[in-house]
Amino acid sequence: ALARRAAALMPSGGAILTLDTTLLTRVIQIDKVSMTARIEAGIYGPQLEEQLQAHGVTLAHYPQSFLYSTLGGWIAARGAGQQSNRYGKAEKWLVSAKLATPKGFWTTEATPASAAGPNLNQLVAGSEGTLGVIVEATVKIHDLPERKDYRGYLFKTFAQGIEAARRINHAEIPVAMVRLSDSPETYFFQALSSSGSGGLKSKLQRTYLKMKGFTDAPCLMLIGHEGTKETVIWAQEQTEAICRRLGALALGTGPGKRWFHGRFNGPAVRDPMMDRGLGVETLETSTRWSNIANLHEKVVEAISNAIAANVPEQNARGIVMAHVSHSYPDGASLYFTFVFPRQLDREVEQWQAIKRAASDTIEMNGGTITHHHGVGVDHAPWLGEEKGEIGMSILRATKREMDSKGVMNPGKVLG
Amino acid sequence: ALARRAAALMPSGGAILTLDTTLLTRVIQIDKVSMTARIEAGIYGPQLEEQLQAHGVTLAHYPQSFLYSTLGGWIAARGAGQQSNRYGKAEKWLVSAKLATPKGFWTTEATPASAAGPNLNQLVAGSEGTLGVIVEATVKIHDLPERKDYRGYLFKTFAQGIEAARRINHAEIPVAMVRLSDSPETYFFQALSSSGSGGLKSKLQRTYLKMKGFTDAPCLMLIGHEGTKETVIWAQEQTEAICRRLGALALGTGPGKRWFHGRFNGPAVRDPMMDRGLGVETLETSTRWSNIANLHEKVVEAISNAIAANVPEQNARGIVMAHVSHSYPDGASLYFTFVFPRQLDREVEQWQAIKRAASDTIEMNGGTITHHHGVGVDHAPWLGEEKGEIGMSILRATKREMDSKGVMNPGKVLG
Repeated sequence: ALARRAAALMPSGGAILTLDTTLLTRVIQIDKVSMTARIEAGIYGPQLEEQLQAHGVTLAHYPQSFLYSTLGGWIAARGAGQQSNRYGKAEKWLVSAKLATPKGFWTTEATPASAAGPNLNQLVAGSEGTLGVIVEATVKIHDLPERKDYRGYLFKTFAQGIEAARRINHAEIPVAMVRLSDSPETYFFQALSSSGSGGLKSKLQRTYLKMKGFTDAPCLMLIGHEGTKETVIWAQEQTEAICRRLGALALGTGPGKRWFHGRFNGPAVRDPMMDRGLGVETLETSTRWSNIANLHEKVVEAISNAIAANVPEQNARGIVMAHVSHSYPDGASLYFTFVFPRQLDREVEQWQAIKRAASDTIEMNGGTITHHHGVGVDHAPWLGEEKGEIGMSILRATKREMDSKGVMNPGKVLG
Repeated sequence: ALARRAAALMPSGGAILTLDTTLLTRVIQIDKVSMTARIEAGIYGPQLEEQLQAHGVTLAHYPQSFLYSTLGGWIAARGAGQQSNRYGKAEKWLVSAKLATPKGFWTTEATPASAAGPNLNQLVAGSEGTLGVIVEATVKIHDLPERKDYRGYLFKTFAQGIEAARRINHAEIPVAMVRLSDSPETYFFQALSSSGSGGLKSKLQRTYLKMKGFTDAPCLMLIGHEGTKETVIWAQEQTEAICRRLGALALGTGPGKRWFHGRFNGPAVRDPMMDRGLGVETLETSTRWSNIANLHEKVVEAISNAIAANVPEQNARGIVMAHVSHSYPDGASLYFTFVFPRQLDREVEQWQAIKRAASDTIEMNGGTITHHHGVGVDHAPWLGEEKGEIGMSILRATKREMDSKGVMNPGKVLG
């Protein structure tokens, strides 16, 4: 969380300075005609939405870390909110940024689209504090949605769910969120759910599903629509038709409401599990549609094998599950969650072994080392492979030009 | 046209080499699941579409220069096709590029979305040959649209037309093109049109328009929808409702068909006019919605004044007209066309005076110096103001890193 809201500075003396930006909390200007807002970048998610929503507008960037992360951090780490299909990943809603750099203040270009050379906003997004501290940003905002509609669909296979997500993207149907769990995740969250209504627990329900051709390992998809009443009604009909054509069972709004209610709770589930000797970790990537099923299979296998090779006692095993949560015309993200029995005498080595196995597999199979978590320290070893030697040399040259003394978050993404 | 398909190289000896890439014409791979294609970058528009459409897919990048420009040129100059609302400007449909650079071949990252540092594709788009020669690109493609629907609407004022374009964007209605002419352009193209049907020529039509509250200077909007039958039908109803609520008169599909038929003819109209002692020139910009009306007014005034100050004989005057042709959530482009009597003894100075007046006015009033024409030589004097000193220093550092001897299109956008 700290990395998301602050920038570490290291003066030549060698001391480490951590800069807290969280007093920069003003919404400076709202332009309701252009639907943009200029906002100081140290503001936390809830403060930002409170100020915008008082004017009837929203940025609607809701990462799971929403409560504890800032506007500047979202941009610096190229974050993604849960409704990124509608509201965009940070690099998409970013219009312009103002940075405090070793060379002075720098405000990037702010036009809607331009052919005046490369777009430098895309160099700021993902710079993770290495070029300067983001102190202000102009971002795209939206009217508060007139209507929200979140529904669940049950697919017989993960592949059919992926195909539905792909068709929804290619048909250009306005959608706020498409979230598909694989069968282990569908089972896991079903088992965790305390509410029985709308669930799949009863024997009667199981019998019904069996009749309909569902196995015991179906996959849950949640589809969210937000916007004007007219658009939401039309778009919901379109997405439901696509799901039904692929054999999905429409579960109605129950599962959607339950997910929406608990959407920031993930991290809070982790700590009690860790108290019980379990390790819980997540990692994520994205790839093109034609490679999603392959990458999912390979990474699940790599994590499972790495867990099996690093357990405290023979035959102990872990759980690996995944979901697709952000989708694009050319591909989608994959988000993996895994639970494993901790080796209490070598926890760090155990984690490193699993992380390395997953990351190597992602890189070898055409995924990005991170879709929205950022590079930081954990992903740095895999960055060079992804950007290439020439790409890395450009990033390093940019860093040298902006910060010749190397005081801005040294040694990170830009070298 | 040459600048769009080739890169000029200047070895240290001082000779100028022009590289012709137009034998690089292969479509290497089509991925119909991810809807991307990998294509050699020297290919001209018509060849590219012919090869893609044989497989039922399209890039649908149709700039006015479509017949004489190449894939690599579109990317290098951040071009925009006429249906950019649906198919995207070059920097949006670009997935990955392969460049021949002084450091060797460089292939940029290709994931759908990533947080693995800055996106270097956005440094390639707009580099205008200064970092290397684009030899190959992976681009987003679409199924050939099941249906196309192009219609005309007549607005009482330019401001109401702008408001319609803005609402269409903010309502997230899938649209391929929204093109709004100001009243001089509406009048000019009406006068040029040889076809009477569906026009506004007859006395009867004028009387009808007057009754409906239209003045003699209405503004024509063309709205194009492309996609699946279902989406086009729904979206067309939505855009028509927005236009009608703003007092527009629906003209049906006639004006749309006429525009579509003549969509690449603009430049061909220019030469006969020049033979008759007239000068014809275009320039373009983009800005946020809240500034469109102001920028339109200021640039029209600046061009008109510059023409008046540079005419061959007293009281000779020019025509200045404009349209909005590419729109985004936060703003839109403005494209100006002007016709003026040429000063045959000082044509270059006359053109420079008008160009300078327009460009200064654009920069002083929050527009970009170019939305899709690129920087080249003509716009270079205004680039520094737009990118800022720090932005320019990053562009120059990138250039030095990639091309230390300065052989790739020297002296252009990246210094």
